[in-house]
This record gives sequence, structure tokens and C-alpha cells, in this order.
Amino acid sequence: MKRIRINTPEGKSILLMGGTVRDILPLLPRKGLFIITDTNVRKIYGSIFPPGEVLAIEPGEKSKTLAVAGELCRQMLEAGADRTSFVLGFGGGVVCDVAGLVASIYMRGVRHAFISTTLLSQVDASIGGKTGVNLGEYKNILGTFRQPEFVLCDHEMLSTLSDEEFRSGLGELLKHGAIRDRNLFFDVAAAADRLSSRDPRILGDFIMRAVRIKAGVVKRDPLEKGLRRILNFGHTFGHVLETHYKIPHGMAVAQGMIIAAELSVWKGEMPHSELRLLQVTMEKTGLLTDYRLPAGVVNMMAKDKKSEAGSLNFVLLRMVGKAIVRKIPVTELQAFVSYYNEKQDSG
Amino acid sequence: MKRIRINTPEGKSILLMGGTVRDILPLLPRKGLFIITDTNVRKIYGSIFPPGEVLAIEPGEKSKTLAVAGELCRQMLEAGADRTSFVLGFGGGVVCDVAGLVASIYMRGVRHAFISTTLLSQVDASIGGKTGVNLGEYKNILGTFRQPEFVLCDHEMLSTLSDEEFRSGLGELLKHGAIRDRNLFFDVAAAADRLSSRDPRILGDFIMRAVRIKAGVVKRDPLEKGLRRILNFGHTFGHVLETHYKIPHGMAVAQGMIIAAELSVWKGEMPHSELRLLQVTMEKTGLLTDYRLPAGVVNMMAKDKKSEAGSLNFVLLRMVGKAIVRKIPVTELQAFVSYYNEKQDSG
Repeated sequence: MKRIRINTPEGKSILLMGGTVRDILPLLPRKGLFIITDTNVRKIYGSIFPPGEVLAIEPGEKSKTLAVAGELCRQMLEAGADRTSFVLGFGGGVVCDVAGLVASIYMRGVRHAFISTTLLSQVDASIGGKTGVNLGEYKNILGTFRQPEFVLCDHEMLSTLSDEEFRSGLGELLKHGAIRDRNLFFDVAAAADRLSSRDPRILGDFIMRAVRIKAGVVKRDPLEKGLRRILNFGHTFGHVLETHYKIPHGMAVAQGMIIAAELSVWKGEMPHSELRLLQVTMEKTGLLTDYRLPAGVVNMMAKDKKSEAGSLNFVLLRMVGKAIVRKIPVTELQAFVSYYNEKQDSG
Repeated sequence: MKRIRINTPEGKSILLMGGTVRDILPLLPRKGLFIITDTNVRKIYGSIFPPGEVLAIEPGEKSKTLAVAGELCRQMLEAGADRTSFVLGFGGGVVCDVAGLVASIYMRGVRHAFISTTLLSQVDASIGGKTGVNLGEYKNILGTFRQPEFVLCDHEMLSTLSDEEFRSGLGELLKHGAIRDRNLFFDVAAAADRLSSRDPRILGDFIMRAVRIKAGVVKRDPLEKGLRRILNFGHTFGHVLETHYKIPHGMAVAQGMIIAAELSVWKGEMPHSELRLLQVTMEKTGLLTDYRLPAGVVNMMAKDKKSEAGSLNFVLLRMVGKAIVRKIPVTELQAFVSYYNEKQDSG
């Protein structure tokens, strides 16, 4: 098991890479443990849950609401949770996002940590201290910044994921390469076949490289005032696609990355050859999709929280492995969307 | 206008005592201002609201829910609020508590400040960075710690309060004296008649003394790990009375203070003569009530967030002007409640 530390002024977090549930038992309190999970995860891993009160939500994005977070708090109060209680999120991205918010607001904040069961959450969602729920069709509008005390990433658990969930996680893995580590990006693509065997050692190596990138960025900008924005690469278009077509997060982000790369070329920030490389790689990893951008996409993006005062802070690429942030006016995005959709339509 | 600064590792706050709305206009952004208020306050002060989007909730405790906070966030999103937006809570305790929570979770936190319109919120609720909503019948179970950038206390506004609201505020004013400043406590009682004229200079002087006490405590313990607990004097019994009898917060706290003082005598921490002084003072300020403690009070208190792992951290007095915190087991509290209610019944 390897340890990565994320120290920020707002709190410290230890990422435990490649450990097992047994390894983290000493880090949990003897009593007052509340395990927030979903009914799928409970079915698979319920037998190895540490001793505590289990609160299970419905799996999937529909559970990411303020009402579900409030209901979990109500159940905790009912079960006697107090300020000394400890919330353990045991699951994927949705579970971690909701459990983190619950721990942030229950009695103005209680201790919390995650056991991360999906590729998506091991490379991304459980790391970095962002919590969040959706507001209607807008993703992660409500939330907090709060570092989990630890995050356990047990790579053996990835064997139980469906192919779709696994591919979705590959999307976020590739994103980390695309914004900051060109080698990681192409290494993932080259290893695509071997990765699909879910070998925990091969996976562990790639996850570690991605998490080091994310941890490094979060340490330098925990509250997303600047640099951390690059982690949103692919997410602005991605969120719209995810909500509109009800596709998995990582798949939506993957297409969002390609669209953002198109935008980078359109803005003259990146040569077309790099866009081509990105597309080929997405194809190789089974992540190439061609959803059309829905009508009203720019208005939806403008309500996405990456927008600020009329313009959008957009993450673009200079090349595969190097992201930049540019303010782009809404009007210019309108023009780009028309161009992109016409291109899609003409095949 | 006088300034009191509260600097904590989690944020800074400036309290502007005795200023007017005009004074704070330079502190607000030119656009992106969202004013959270209630329909009563809007009726009285709507004409002097700074330019911004106005979101009004129903007045009163029933608006302190997570659902109302979520609905305010939805309205903000609808109206185009983004990360650069600024939330101004304009009202009393309920408005400030809810607006603070909205500012804490909207897009993972936006800037916020308060204009405090009631005596209760000027001496207490708007100061110190606690935000919160209720969960069913339990008060302030959900919330955050987040310092408002500034709090304006315009004492002229107190002339529009009902007598009941005003007396409720006196309860919290007396509390600050009871826990930390014996002179303040007796000075308030001696000035009770003059105070009821709502003279802003006399009020301003007392509010300033109370706020200095609160600011000093909050600076030393912003997250309520220890010392800050004394600010909850009267609140553990008070919350139960407030919910059960639907009486104003400060009235409930006043009786809660007397009961906590009885408990202090019962535990041998304080002489009976001091309890008598407290009772006489409450009577003089129109705050003496004699509600019976409802059945199940101890269970309700145990779910209150001042409880920790089976015992309750209880704020007691050594004398008027000096508070201490003691852990008291639930069983002992049961015995005390029986004793207290029998005494009430026998008149």
C-alpha cells in the first residue's frame, strides 16, 4: 500500500493506494461509525463493511440531490449520530460526493473518509475534497470543499465493475494525462487491452500516476481559484451531454474532451494533428462517441458553475499533456457550437 | 460607526456597529448581488435595499429548513448567480442562518454578508459565522462555519421590532452578561425601562458590549471545540422549550438559562443566592416564564448537537458572569428534570 498526502490550509487527506479494508480499520473510531453506501455496493461488499450503522442510497446520479443528503442526515440523527460521529463513504463517485456533503453539514461538520470502489472515483471523484449534489439538471451546483481524512483505493474492487463503469473511469484517467502528462495519456491507450483484464497491479500503476497529478494540483489550489480549473477539462461540454443523454460521467467527459480539443484548434491554441491523436486514442479505448450538442447547450453551460460573469472559463489544450484556461465569451461559444454540430451532421 | 474585527483561520469578518445601509454600499459588488430576506423585512426596508435580485422567504422558524435553502439556491441559479455572486442576508436570525448556509454551499461557496435587523441577530445570530437549519424538531442540526465578510448592525432598525421580538433579543443580550460579564448583566436589568424606548444610543452601547464578548470568544475558538461552547448557555433546555411551546428563541433561552442555573446549584457549582439574582433580573426584564419541561426532554437534548457520546456537554454557572462546561451523564439529567418539574408543579 502506498500513501500520498494532500495537505491544504483547509485540511489534510491521506490517499491509501492499493490497500484493503483491513488496512484502514485502525483509522476508524470504535463507535459512532456511519457507513454511507448504495444498495449495489452493499450487496457486493456488505460482508466486509467495518462495524457501524449502514445507510444505503439508490445507486446512480438520481441520488445526488440535497433531499437525499438531508434524508441521510435525518437517519443519522435518528440513529444517534453526534459531533463525534464519523462518516465513511463506501462506494463510487455518487456515494463519495453525497457522503462528503453530509459530513460537511451534519452538526456543522463531522469527520469523514472514503473507501472508493470504482475506477472513476479512485482516479478522480473521491480525491481532492470536493463534495456536491445536483440542482435539477445542473451538476454539482451545491457542495463544499472538505478533505476526507483518508481515501482507500483498493484496486481489487475494480474487478466487480461493469464494462460501462470501467470505461467511464478510463475517461477520467485519460483526462489526467491529457491535461498534464502526455506519457500517461499514450501509455493508457497502449495498455487498453491489458487494462480490460482488470489486473490490479497494472491498474494500480496507472491510477497512482493519475492521482499524483490530481493531488499535486489540489495541493497548489485546493479551493479552485486558478490552476485547479484544469481538472475540469472536458467537463463543461461533458456535463451537458451527461445530463441530456443520460450517459455515464466518464463517457461524457471523454466526448467533452474531444469537443474542448476541437475548440482549442478552432481558437488556434492547438494544432489539428494533436486533436487527431486524441480522437484516435479515444477510439482505441472504446470512448469515442458522437453525440450532437443539444439545443441550448451554451445557456446550460453558462449556468454551469465554471461560468463567471458572462464569460466562461474554459479549459483548452496547447497539446496533449498541457492544459490552459481561457475566458471565452458566450457569443463566441455559440458560433463554435454551430460549427461543431454542422461538422457532426455532415459526418 | 464602530468596527470590530473577527479574524479566524477559516475567515475574517468585520462587524459594523451603528452604521446604516448607506455605509456598506461601497463594500458590495456592482453586480451579482442576491439579497436574501423575509417578506416582513422586505415590506419595511425594501425601499432601501441595495440594487440586486431579492429573494424573500416566509418569516419565522418554519423557513429554517434544508428545503428552503435548496429552493433559494434554485432561484439564484435561475437568476444567473455564479461563483462571483454575493449573498447579502437582510433580516433577523432566521434570514442570517439560512442565507449563510446558502452562501456556504452554492457553487461550493460564494461571498456573503449580513444586514442584521433584530436585536437577537445584532447581539448574537448574525455574529460568529455559524449557519444552520433545523432537521424536523431539532434545531440547527445542519449547517456550516463560515464567516460573513461583514455584519452591519443598524440600531435604528430596532425601533420596528414588536415587543415580543425585542424581549427575545434581550434574552441573548443577558446571556452574554451571564456567561462572561457580571456588570453587563446587571446594567441591562437596571436599564430595562430605558431600553424599552429603543433609544439607539443606549441600545448600541449594550449591543457593543455583548458583541465584544461574543467576538472575543469566537476568535479564540471559531469551530466550537471548547471555549465557544459557553455561548450555548441556556440553549440546551432552551431549544426544547422553543420547539415544544413554539415560543421566541430568546424567551426560550432566558428560561433555559434559569433552568441551567438551577442545575448549577443542584450540581453544587453555584450558590443558591446567585440563582435568585438571575431570577429577579429575568423578572425585571419581562423574561421570566415558567414552562414545564416536556416529557422526553432528556432524549431530545441528547439528540441536540451539544451532546457527545452519551453525555451532554452542559454549560453551567459558577456565578452570574462566569460560565463553565461540564460533562453530565444522561441519567443524572433525568433525575434533575424530575426534581425541576416537581418544583414547578408545587409552585
